[in-house]
Amino acid sequence: MNKTAEKLKEYMKKFQQYQTIEALLSWDLSTMTPEKGIESKTDALGYFSTESFRLATSKEYGEILKELSAPEQFQQLDDAMKVTVRRELRDYERFVRVPEKFYTEYVTLKARSQKAWESAKKANDFSVFAPYLDKVISMTKQYVRYMEPDQKPYEVLLDLFEEGMNSAAIDRIFDELKVGLRPLLEKIKASRQPDLSALQGKYDIQAQKKVQDMLLSYIGFDFTQGATAESEHPFTTEIGSGDVRVTNHYKEDDPIAAMFSAIHEGGHAIFGQNIDPSYENTAVMQVNLMGLHESQSRFYENILGRNPNFWSPVYSKLGELLPNFKEIPFDTFCQAINYVQPSLIRVDADEVTYCLHIILRYEIERAIFNDEVTTEELPQLWNDKMEELLGIRPSSDAEGILQDMHWSDGSFGYFPSYLLGSVYDGMFLQQIEKELGSIDDLLAQGKVLEITKWLNTNIHQYGSLYTSREVIERLCGKELSAQPLLDYFNKKYNTIYSLDH
Amino acid sequence: MNKTAEKLKEYMKKFQQYQTIEALLSWDLSTMTPEKGIESKTDALGYFSTESFRLATSKEYGEILKELSAPEQFQQLDDAMKVTVRRELRDYERFVRVPEKFYTEYVTLKARSQKAWESAKKANDFSVFAPYLDKVISMTKQYVRYMEPDQKPYEVLLDLFEEGMNSAAIDRIFDELKVGLRPLLEKIKASRQPDLSALQGKYDIQAQKKVQDMLLSYIGFDFTQGATAESEHPFTTEIGSGDVRVTNHYKEDDPIAAMFSAIHEGGHAIFGQNIDPSYENTAVMQVNLMGLHESQSRFYENILGRNPNFWSPVYSKLGELLPNFKEIPFDTFCQAINYVQPSLIRVDADEVTYCLHIILRYEIERAIFNDEVTTEELPQLWNDKMEELLGIRPSSDAEGILQDMHWSDGSFGYFPSYLLGSVYDGMFLQQIEKELGSIDDLLAQGKVLEITKWLNTNIHQYGSLYTSREVIERLCGKELSAQPLLDYFNKKYNTIYSLDH
Repeated sequence: MNKTAEKLKEYMKKFQQYQTIEALLSWDLSTMTPEKGIESKTDALGYFSTESFRLATSKEYGEILKELSAPEQFQQLDDAMKVTVRRELRDYERFVRVPEKFYTEYVTLKARSQKAWESAKKANDFSVFAPYLDKVISMTKQYVRYMEPDQKPYEVLLDLFEEGMNSAAIDRIFDELKVGLRPLLEKIKASRQPDLSALQGKYDIQAQKKVQDMLLSYIGFDFTQGATAESEHPFTTEIGSGDVRVTNHYKEDDPIAAMFSAIHEGGHAIFGQNIDPSYENTAVMQVNLMGLHESQSRFYENILGRNPNFWSPVYSKLGELLPNFKEIPFDTFCQAINYVQPSLIRVDADEVTYCLHIILRYEIERAIFNDEVTTEELPQLWNDKMEELLGIRPSSDAEGILQDMHWSDGSFGYFPSYLLGSVYDGMFLQQIEKELGSIDDLLAQGKVLEITKWLNTNIHQYGSLYTSREVIERLCGKELSAQPLLDYFNKKYNTIYSLDH
Repeated sequence: MNKTAEKLKEYMKKFQQYQTIEALLSWDLSTMTPEKGIESKTDALGYFSTESFRLATSKEYGEILKELSAPEQFQQLDDAMKVTVRRELRDYERFVRVPEKFYTEYVTLKARSQKAWESAKKANDFSVFAPYLDKVISMTKQYVRYMEPDQKPYEVLLDLFEEGMNSAAIDRIFDELKVGLRPLLEKIKASRQPDLSALQGKYDIQAQKKVQDMLLSYIGFDFTQGATAESEHPFTTEIGSGDVRVTNHYKEDDPIAAMFSAIHEGGHAIFGQNIDPSYENTAVMQVNLMGLHESQSRFYENILGRNPNFWSPVYSKLGELLPNFKEIPFDTFCQAINYVQPSLIRVDADEVTYCLHIILRYEIERAIFNDEVTTEELPQLWNDKMEELLGIRPSSDAEGILQDMHWSDGSFGYFPSYLLGSVYDGMFLQQIEKELGSIDDLLAQGKVLEITKWLNTNIHQYGSLYTSREVIERLCGKELSAQPLLDYFNKKYNTIYSLDH
């Protein structure tokens, strides 16, 4: 490696140190920090973020990147370093175009806006949030315009969360889904709904934690390079190399929510735990491809976790850890985890109607960034779209536009990645069955770790070396399409709801 | 405040940020980090320690301190800033005299030596540790000689852990104790020992944690500015302002050890939680006076926690949380927590013989730093002194010289502070009873928080504004003496063991 490339590695190593402590501070704030210790942690987070931003926008760093991107030097780099130079230079150039004063203001606004959103949601009052949201929208537009003056803002945002993705592709895929899901949903709505009253009860929290550990081990989470804790909302985070952690949130009356959160976050974590360590100190270690990341968590949660065969080898174990399950017939449990019905809250939605929750958000974001809707009109637009897509209407903003945190901190363009993840999953499922045989059979034999191994080998080990599109092209050899996901839904729910009879 | 003083405050603020993340990394390493994540955390700790060391030895920082220490500027500072300038300049001058290469070598050696000590202890083999200990001793001597070339090394070490303390004062106090304890111990050894078999059993760990929370709240630990976790060895740490945490270690067959660890660490934490926040960003917030700190933890643990009256208001509550205690007579419990008998391991020792464990270590340290003993001779010297002071002889080094971690990381001079803490406690107890009346009565009425309030007002709020000697002078108006501690021991154990009959 030449000297400039070594200097880049040193910078990447330093960034890694900052990421480690920033992730640790955030982890601690969400899982452990007492009330009066919040300010000092937030303060430290601000201090070290600024320090690392300074490093990332320093002149020296820019020169290293520019030098390495010159053709004669670039050609000598290995693939991971090529990705690193390309992506870091792009980010560097984006960042240095943002005036420091504007950036500080934007960061401060987002923090305030998140707090306003929390209050508004609690008070069920959009007007508390509206002035902040309005300002976040206009500053996000400006932020993106600074970064990429020649591109349409929403395209830049989509690319930030899923490199290489654009609205033309998403329009095509999401329209395919809208059309394809309609008849299935009509049939489900017209069919008889199961009786789930056997699940009612009080489920011990300590026992629920043991269930989480059992499920995480079962799917391949490695406790020698991971840990668990409780937080208000479940999340996954990497705190330095060799340490990918998940959190969960437990409710006494709903063990199933925590079980599926465990499997979902477990999927994210298994991805992070299995990136080839030889990519250490390159950009490949950081997977900012949110669609690809969600494809892994959602593959475990839905494609595997909601398959009755996933549970048959462990259902008696579940009853041992959480004795309530001894009283619940296996079939009732399977019906409960696959119960499809239009509902108002995204995070509580089943895997089928979930798609429409995302399409709604995507269409509204697109309208916002095409200047087709004012902030004032957003609650009405939300409710109209709920009625159009799901046939139900929120009775309040807390059940409508105020339910998600994403927009309060400027994360426009993030929502589509959840659904793109599921679309990728349809394609991965097809490919896995081609190579390993029926998923139903593998799961029924308790061989979920063989599927994990396939995902490790074909996806996880490469980190973000390839974009999602490249991954799909390499693995499946075809263009992205929603058809495999639709096929999976139709086959599965025709059986579960006996729709063909 | 003048500009230079403001600059000093800015530096102190920056140091605080580094301390926050260094404490958080250490906390995480002890309580949470999975096996494969240890290296990245240790790495980050090294990186940020070096950064903050650079800041603390920077030329600019030294100039700020020198400028502020000039008489005309110094006189204008308030007391906390005077302490800050004086102490920071002393440390600055000490640090810059240590060659960087030597310092790095020393830090690396200490890390290796700790690992060697762990292995040696596990293998019960001093020879594994001896070469490291030998090197740590010689490098610690050199380190201290760099810092204070004109002072005797052991005096510098004592002063590092308890500012203003020296071996002449300690010799006098410890000799007073040695002489005073002898007759009491003889009497106890000759008296009938209690039957403690009722305590044998299995105690649920989750329930033990609830007992810890109850005890911490009872003595005044503030959960809005603190938290708890498990670790191999109990400790207390401050992670940024408003956040003082304690850990504990639980054993199924010994609930009493964890209860007294909780009270001990709780005492440290209550000190930290009650320093006046107006001292923020001054050296007063950091209490490096280990004797004073131990006096607080040991006051709660021994003077309060081992008093039967402490328990009478909460003994039924204890039985509710940990039902085993319903079967244990209150008197048996009180005998168990005050069972005095010479034993080999310091951390398991009762409060009376504990004194002799410390005196042994102090006398050995003094011999080491006066070049009166070789590393090879240390195990023998240890065992001889055990026999001389406690009348028992270790049958192995694991029960002898290998039991404590302190020397493996160069913390010579730390041990005396444990016993100094107890000596201070004797004096504080006398003063509290003068002002508030009998401790027995206060405790029996469940008024432990009145005692906490006295400690908050008279000691805790000032942080390290005063040295321990100044605190005692201000509060008790007399010279340090071991007599009050001896009086406390004699009165208490004459009653418990009915020695007067």
